[in-house]
Amino acid sequence: MDKIKVGIIGATGFAGAELVRILAGHKNAKITVLTSRQYVGVNFDKIYPAMQGIISLKCEEYNQRTVEKADIFFLALPHQISMEIAPQFVAQGKKVIDLSADFRFTEVDTYEKYYQSHKAKHLLKEAVYGLSEVYTYKIKKARLIGNPGCYPTSALLPLIPILKTKLIRPETIIIDSKSGVSGAGRSLSLTNQYCSVAESFKAYKVASHRHSPEIEEILQQEAGPSASITFVPHLIPMSRGMETTIYADLTDSRIEERHILSNLLSYYKDRYFIRICKDRVPDTLAVRGTNFCDIGVKIDKKNNRLILLSVIDNLVKGAAGQAVQNMNLMLGLDERIGLDNVGYAV
Amino acid sequence: MDKIKVGIIGATGFAGAELVRILAGHKNAKITVLTSRQYVGVNFDKIYPAMQGIISLKCEEYNQRTVEKADIFFLALPHQISMEIAPQFVAQGKKVIDLSADFRFTEVDTYEKYYQSHKAKHLLKEAVYGLSEVYTYKIKKARLIGNPGCYPTSALLPLIPILKTKLIRPETIIIDSKSGVSGAGRSLSLTNQYCSVAESFKAYKVASHRHSPEIEEILQQEAGPSASITFVPHLIPMSRGMETTIYADLTDSRIEERHILSNLLSYYKDRYFIRICKDRVPDTLAVRGTNFCDIGVKIDKKNNRLILLSVIDNLVKGAAGQAVQNMNLMLGLDERIGLDNVGYAV
Amino acid sequence: MDKIKVGIIGATGFAGAELVRILAGHKNAKITVLTSRQYVGVNFDKIYPAMQGIISLKCEEYNQRTVEKADIFFLALPHQISMEIAPQFVAQGKKVIDLSADFRFTEVDTYEKYYQSHKAKHLLKEAVYGLSEVYTYKIKKARLIGNPGCYPTSALLPLIPILKTKLIRPETIIIDSKSGVSGAGRSLSLTNQYCSVAESFKAYKVASHRHSPEIEEILQQEAGPSASITFVPHLIPMSRGMETTIYADLTDSRIEERHILSNLLSYYKDRYFIRICKDRVPDTLAVRGTNFCDIGVKIDKKNNRLILLSVIDNLVKGAAGQAVQNMNLMLGLDERIGLDNVGYAV
Amino acid sequence: MDKIKVGIIGATGFAGAELVRILAGHKNAKITVLTSRQYVGVNFDKIYPAMQGIISLKCEEYNQRTVEKADIFFLALPHQISMEIAPQFVAQGKKVIDLSADFRFTEVDTYEKYYQSHKAKHLLKEAVYGLSEVYTYKIKKARLIGNPGCYPTSALLPLIPILKTKLIRPETIIIDSKSGVSGAGRSLSLTNQYCSVAESFKAYKVASHRHSPEIEEILQQEAGPSASITFVPHLIPMSRGMETTIYADLTDSRIEERHILSNLLSYYKDRYFIRICKDRVPDTLAVRGTNFCDIGVKIDKKNNRLILLSVIDNLVKGAAGQAVQNMNLMLGLDERIGLDNVGYAV
Repeated sequence: MDKIKVGIIGATGFAGAELVRILAGHKNAKITVLTSRQYVGVNFDKIYPAMQGIISLKCEEYNQRTVEKADIFFLALPHQISMEIAPQFVAQGKKVIDLSADFRFTEVDTYEKYYQSHKAKHLLKEAVYGLSEVYTYKIKKARLIGNPGCYPTSALLPLIPILKTKLIRPETIIIDSKSGVSGAGRSLSLTNQYCSVAESFKAYKVASHRHSPEIEEILQQEAGPSASITFVPHLIPMSRGMETTIYADLTDSRIEERHILSNLLSYYKDRYFIRICKDRVPDTLAVRGTNFCDIGVKIDKKNNRLILLSVIDNLVKGAAGQAVQNMNLMLGLDERIGLDNVGYAV
Repeated sequence: MDKIKVGIIGATGFAGAELVRILAGHKNAKITVLTSRQYVGVNFDKIYPAMQGIISLKCEEYNQRTVEKADIFFLALPHQISMEIAPQFVAQGKKVIDLSADFRFTEVDTYEKYYQSHKAKHLLKEAVYGLSEVYTYKIKKARLIGNPGCYPTSALLPLIPILKTKLIRPETIIIDSKSGVSGAGRSLSLTNQYCSVAESFKAYKVASHRHSPEIEEILQQEAGPSASITFVPHLIPMSRGMETTIYADLTDSRIEERHILSNLLSYYKDRYFIRICKDRVPDTLAVRGTNFCDIGVKIDKKNNRLILLSVIDNLVKGAAGQAVQNMNLMLGLDERIGLDNVGYAV
Repeated sequence: MDKIKVGIIGATGFAGAELVRILAGHKNAKITVLTSRQYVGVNFDKIYPAMQGIISLKCEEYNQRTVEKADIFFLALPHQISMEIAPQFVAQGKKVIDLSADFRFTEVDTYEKYYQSHKAKHLLKEAVYGLSEVYTYKIKKARLIGNPGCYPTSALLPLIPILKTKLIRPETIIIDSKSGVSGAGRSLSLTNQYCSVAESFKAYKVASHRHSPEIEEILQQEAGPSASITFVPHLIPMSRGMETTIYADLTDSRIEERHILSNLLSYYKDRYFIRICKDRVPDTLAVRGTNFCDIGVKIDKKNNRLILLSVIDNLVKGAAGQAVQNMNLMLGLDERIGLDNVGYAV
Repeated sequence: MDKIKVGIIGATGFAGAELVRILAGHKNAKITVLTSRQYVGVNFDKIYPAMQGIISLKCEEYNQRTVEKADIFFLALPHQISMEIAPQFVAQGKKVIDLSADFRFTEVDTYEKYYQSHKAKHLLKEAVYGLSEVYTYKIKKARLIGNPGCYPTSALLPLIPILKTKLIRPETIIIDSKSGVSGAGRSLSLTNQYCSVAESFKAYKVASHRHSPEIEEILQQEAGPSASITFVPHLIPMSRGMETTIYADLTDSRIEERHILSNLLSYYKDRYFIRICKDRVPDTLAVRGTNFCDIGVKIDKKNNRLILLSVIDNLVKGAAGQAVQNMNLMLGLDERIGLDNVGYAV
């Protein structure tokens, strides 16, 4: 098979660089164009020296001819910019996987309430939410993917199977998430300086993060309008990794951990990237650098409350990895290609 | 005033060493005896080189004559051992501040359910729970203090004022805590090795940590028997610091953040070590190395749910600092003495 | 004694904030003015929440009246700006401790070769190099201090006694230093982002750092013109701390470690902040947050080469701490006041 | 091609686990046996949860039949134990790659001076030092490899080409190395506890580390008996990564950086894993998780001194990665197989 030609628009941010890392090792793909506003004409490995000897492309400016240079495009851009350029890719028959929030929402109103006015509304209904294990079949046929946010990925993967089978009360969900610093991206800020982060742990955007409506819209689609969440993200002093602890009241006091586990095992049967933890607590270290989502379960019997725990690498399953998984699905490839690296023991 | 003579039993663990650090700079106290089982005869600064030039005591073995060497004793021992030796200090008229769990519980049954059989039951009713800002008057008159656990300190300080005034429903409390690694102590273990912890974030003892009944007993004493919590601790890749995020349903949808803030400000009026954060989110970095507890408040209006956020340094306000604060109270001193160091900006 | 009034010009950078931290706990000093260009009118504790409850000053703009507001001023400014404003403080009889490079050099030419043209040359000869333990007597009488750089402090303290007594060959000195990230200051940069620093260790400005001529000028003053160094700084993934390993050929193969140790012990006799390590290797953790400089010694017999090891906290002994020590000396106070906090065991 | 059967003796230490990680992704190899003394009968993924879904082997006890279970064996054992069991593998025609120090030395006397008496002296002359890019041809024909230490790998790769061409004076070499904590292995120790390491940077085994004679023996073989080094290792607060800064006097003051660079480029022509850095300083982050060795060069003109800088991942190129590279060479495979993962940008 000829290698598919891949373009990355906005290649020099953290998600873009992670796409380069993964796609450089993808046996069926070939990166043919990298764009950047800030680094036009600069060799990619000058920006990320880890790439010396791996990739020899220069960053290009995005322009009208960019669209001709590949068959599938990853947009690793800030929201608002994605929706300005995505339509022309789609119009010219290219497949598009957008990593911003611009094509994640079905409801225009929700998007516009939390972000800004939408400039490509006609594509919102068509765009498929790229939660790979949940919307597999839609993704396979999609031409435009709204790739999920990192927090939504970590929360939705454990929650959806449980909610769909009505094991928990959908109005009692509390999501307490913790993320490594790379989630904040490469933009300069006092908040992602080393000295602000080291020995610091704190919540931020408490019950006001824009991933909250993203999670809620999907939960409501899956389980009805009563689904409502309280979501609090926190910042961990580490580069990569995300842990999410979810609390919800059980619908029945006879539900046991084994019921929850078997529900998850059944829903994610044969899905390589979902690992159900039967006798261990999910640990971000075990998924670092990989596309795995590890899920654990505990019931607080006394309070009849379910606790779900999940971990992902925010840059891989939470961004670039899931994007490549979606590309694989869209192209009819094994979803694991390019993503089968083994995690580090330490 | 003559300096009070202070002994530290079990001085070489992390809590013990932190007591040494604080007491070495306390203008009204003088450390006269340090005991250790493992390091008998060793200069303390050989174990902790930070102490070179600060303290020149050798570690001694604990024996019958130890009790004569000071006026007030800190027991920084594993539980079970504390209750074996505390009675003889008390019997000889010494004041005792015990940092283990042995004297934290009023109910013997609760202690014995979660720990083991109690060997000094007669002292349980007398012992005062050393949550300094809450039980100040009892502490001033106590001769035996059960110094609170780190998680309970971080959870109870924000919760008690709110619960007492019935602003939240006591049966809906969820406590999601995160602790630096020093909380696990100095004992060798795979789980506190550097390579197990760095780039690792994970929950542990999910809904089964022994600080859970400690929190619950106090909450029930303060707010009635319906208080019930789900408690999940997590491990952060950093040495010091603890963050606790608490969720509870409000009793009335008209309650606003300003009501909660004013409740806390009023309850902790004139208490130096409690800092209410009006326009910022508590950050462990801001309390590192200090005895402060910073508390923040947020209401998730849509779900009528209160979110309380608190941070402490687990070794200071969560252990040795609060113990010294209690000593100050017991001795009629200004509670800030020895604890007024300024935190680091970075 | 009335408290001396202290002003900090440029209070919101890391060195400025560290000055605030130390001076807020100094029993003989009172901070009366803090200036900042970026944060005029902002409460200092809004910038550094660790200071809530500690200091209630607002940042002011620097202007002509600033000079009247205190008796002694710390300039924590970028070089070039210091030399523009220092003269007016001196002219009005104020004592000045400048933390930039502007008044560290005796030779104008050296300064101008490595920095830029000097605008206050008339003060260069008068300014005293504030290496507290070496130039104590000059400092006591100075009205303008050029406070040493962090790397020079860590290198000069071990080297000067050894070089003065001709134990090593001055033309063979190699200085391999490693610094925590706070040394780079608070300015936004890709190089001090968390994700650039974590799991990264690297040299920078190899044999071309501007602290190199600063070290050399002092060594030549102390030991003659043949002193010449190769200096390579490295960046450690941690906030605070600096380690310097120095290599030099011994002048005589009969020199033993005990000779070196006794030389250092004698030179630094009765100097509280210098700790000679007889049977341990200096560790940055043991000096974190303190004004200590720990020095260790090893001889590589086979190669007749001396190895000196030193550690400091780059923000304390390497900047703000030494500056306050110098203030104490200038005011005739015990040099330890405000700097006698005990380091952390962990 | 049938997959080659591979055994790992001592699989549960850090080097062993890293071998599992790499070999699990090696397209021409199949792990058929893992041994462990401590974890007999335990699934490997219970020890390292990163391996869940990747490998399903249990740890076995090493015994006489182990040798039959694979064609090539990696010994990831403490020294002294390796030499007891290596001979029987060799005797039965198996290829052996030993990661301990037991087969790294040609001279028995040197080994016995720094380690202990040798029990398999007859194999010392035959064993090939597995510095892959230097001894490629010998490695291809070897049946027993003494896989290099991490420090020696990082020091020898930059030094050998320069020394062989007499660009530096061999008696003036100083090697200042810094290593991540995983180099100390998985054994429990106060020195590799999280709280001992975080915010700590220190030298250890100053001029007395056993990697020193290992480096010297090879340098003398390559460049004559005058080669002599001073070697000081340091511990960095991070899991993986090693940086080595080397100082040596140039033999001629006309030598420029471009001569050194061209020497290195020529020596390592076509060697994928050696990356010469022309305009950047080597950074451990750029090689994390990879088998690359990045080498940089700087001349301190004033002192006529060369500075070489190298970085590796101590567990990959410094241990398991180079071991697999050697396996590839021994089997006539492309040396990159299983080792072509792309490093992380962050």
